[in-house]
Amino acid sequence: MKYVDHIGIAVTSIEEVLPFYTETLSLKCIGIEDVESENVKVAFIDAGNVRLELLEPLNESSAIAKFLESRGQGIHHIAFDVNNIEERIKELKEKGIRMIQDVPKPGAHGAQVAFLHPKAGHGVLYELCDKG
Amino acid sequence: MKYVDHIGIAVTSIEEVLPFYTETLSLKCIGIEDVESENVKVAFIDAGNVRLELLEPLNESSAIAKFLESRGQGIHHIAFDVNNIEERIKELKEKGIRMIQDVPKPGAHGAQVAFLHPKAGHGVLYELCDKG
Repeated sequence: MKYVDHIGIAVTSIEEVLPFYTETLSLKCIGIEDVESENVKVAFIDAGNVRLELLEPLNESSAIAKFLESRGQGIHHIAFDVNNIEERIKELKEKGIRMIQDVPKPGAHGAQVAFLHPKAGHGVLYELCDKG
Repeated sequence: MKYVDHIGIAVTSIEEVLPFYTETLSLKCIGIEDVESENVKVAFIDAGNVRLELLEPLNESSAIAKFLESRGQGIHHIAFDVNNIEERIKELKEKGIRMIQDVPKPGAHGAQVAFLHPKAGHGVLYELCDKG
């Protein structure tokens, strides 16, 4: 793992939550994008050394909708920047790590992403994020 | 807010969880410390641009013990590095933000820390961390 690319935060409404980040914390929103593959709208917040990603479900089939229903708003995952994501997945599986995706899928900004099973992360949902 | 100083992760046992970070993810543990004021043992993990802090309760009066009981292991808080923490608390309160601590308290590494109420952070527990 090289570094933390972003921290994903589940919110019911980006519009409602964004002023906390931009006005209260004086951080900058650097873009908003729909990620259809994940059924989420994402707002990217520049927090200096790391991005915060506010994740709003686009529909009820979104994993974020299910998370909000069971846990409420809050931190959803931590994403590590990686190179050669297929290799990293292979290495993790060889170390006995259970992956949610064995094959990377498209994420925001055209990245390829894959999640470790939260049990592997001792309750933390970790994402591998390969921006190529 | 300048940047994210660390991400706090609640664990039942640092000993059990640490190999996931050091062996599986190949990250470096840069220290383990008891923070008596918080009733936690903390393991500091260097994740490149940000630290991960594994938080194990030292006793049942720890906020981490209560978190583990109600939510299980997982991400507990995000800490922002700040200067002049008293000024930052004053500014946040003037913006209508409810703080858990109106007066900073001692954290790990001799830092002064204060937490925003998680309702203010829309479900995310944010810490201000002033390392002086």
